[in-house]
Amino acid sequence: MTATPAWPPQSAPRLHVGTLLGTGVSVPIDGNPAHYLISVMRVKPDDIVLLFDGRSGEWAAKARDIRKRDLILEVISQTRPPEHVPDFWLCCAPIKKGRIDLIAEKACELGVAKLQPVLTRRAVVDRLNLDRLHAHLVEAAEQCGRTALPDLGDMVKLDALLRDWPGDRWLFFADETGGDPLADTLRARPGPAAFLIGPEGGFDPVEREAIRAHPRSVPVSLGPRILRAETAAIAATTAWMTINGDWR
Amino acid sequence: MTATPAWPPQSAPRLHVGTLLGTGVSVPIDGNPAHYLISVMRVKPDDIVLLFDGRSGEWAAKARDIRKRDLILEVISQTRPPEHVPDFWLCCAPIKKGRIDLIAEKACELGVAKLQPVLTRRAVVDRLNLDRLHAHLVEAAEQCGRTALPDLGDMVKLDALLRDWPGDRWLFFADETGGDPLADTLRARPGPAAFLIGPEGGFDPVEREAIRAHPRSVPVSLGPRILRAETAAIAATTAWMTINGDWR
Repeated sequence: MTATPAWPPQSAPRLHVGTLLGTGVSVPIDGNPAHYLISVMRVKPDDIVLLFDGRSGEWAAKARDIRKRDLILEVISQTRPPEHVPDFWLCCAPIKKGRIDLIAEKACELGVAKLQPVLTRRAVVDRLNLDRLHAHLVEAAEQCGRTALPDLGDMVKLDALLRDWPGDRWLFFADETGGDPLADTLRARPGPAAFLIGPEGGFDPVEREAIRAHPRSVPVSLGPRILRAETAAIAATTAWMTINGDWR
Repeated sequence: MTATPAWPPQSAPRLHVGTLLGTGVSVPIDGNPAHYLISVMRVKPDDIVLLFDGRSGEWAAKARDIRKRDLILEVISQTRPPEHVPDFWLCCAPIKKGRIDLIAEKACELGVAKLQPVLTRRAVVDRLNLDRLHAHLVEAAEQCGRTALPDLGDMVKLDALLRDWPGDRWLFFADETGGDPLADTLRARPGPAAFLIGPEGGFDPVEREAIRAHPRSVPVSLGPRILRAETAAIAATTAWMTINGDWR
């Protein structure tokens, strides 16, 4: 007896595309993604490539018309329905290039619905390359099997974030001056949530007061050691996913 | 009224040393640490530097005899007692350079007692530079305020790890083929623990059988998405610290 080949093939490359996908749709691919498929993955005619558009789940497509720098992927069937993403936002201050990239990559893998950059007073970086962050989200989604990309918000100032905060969403924040025990606090507050993480230097006292005064905010402690900003972001996301997300 | 200056000064540099510390001990510093103190931090005579030796807590020392490439730090008083580190080991397969370094850095920040490299069949890397990993642990400990360095084990093969496993220690392992829900499983099993994380390609079926057959092993799921090896290591450590460690 021969084993039935796995469907979709485990080795199939996985690619995010902008086109809305559906059976029979032809997706022209050029640029870097084409280079990746043709020269790195050495895709041949009729090979399967998995596609997702961030909205309609995941689809198997067949390669055809492979040329030097472009090819066509023709969608043949759906392989996974649209993903249910836990309703969790990661709100974090911009930090240095490599470390904010790490936050984007890990936030996507860990399952956040939205990454929201927040400008705070002690931020050492006051602008972000959203295109680069988006590229990290896409790459992580391709790698970790997500079919939905996390939303990436434009950077907002902390006071605007607090002013416009949705009334039905918890705003957990990592307070270096101390907070409630993490696990019990999260467990007691299911439902839509966000974690707010400050920059390397933390929030300034006025900011901390404003956050603490917000009706939906809940200060929590991320333990007795001093975490780097990106460690705090990754750890906070993990803790929420473990206790209130879809890791249960 | 003038505010009393904070003690120890918040801006004091923090350094790990090999010398066993105590009041009155003089610690000669040269090489990179001296360069860091003299040229980067611009330490002047009588400035305070915080020292820890990984065993005796943290100490304030005064700089003296500052020369071009060396100086003396004279210990004046203890600032913190030896740290109580939660009894948690992170056992992980070697992975690519930058990513195993990230595991070492984050494991130290998150509070592990021991980092134990484990060689598995699908490991893409079969040797580790333990000196480099040790340097990452030291740097992270200096940064995050730990007074105890995590132990760093020599690399062991998976079968030896399982054979010599201590009978009183849980061996949680991240099983990509599915496992028990993370939070409840951890909560039901307090006490000494370890998390075993495979390489990028996961454990092979024979290894997985051997791990599952071990009397102390407990398979758990790290959620529905595919985590990179270093993300799994960081997430597993965070989850344990949140539920059973000292983040409570």
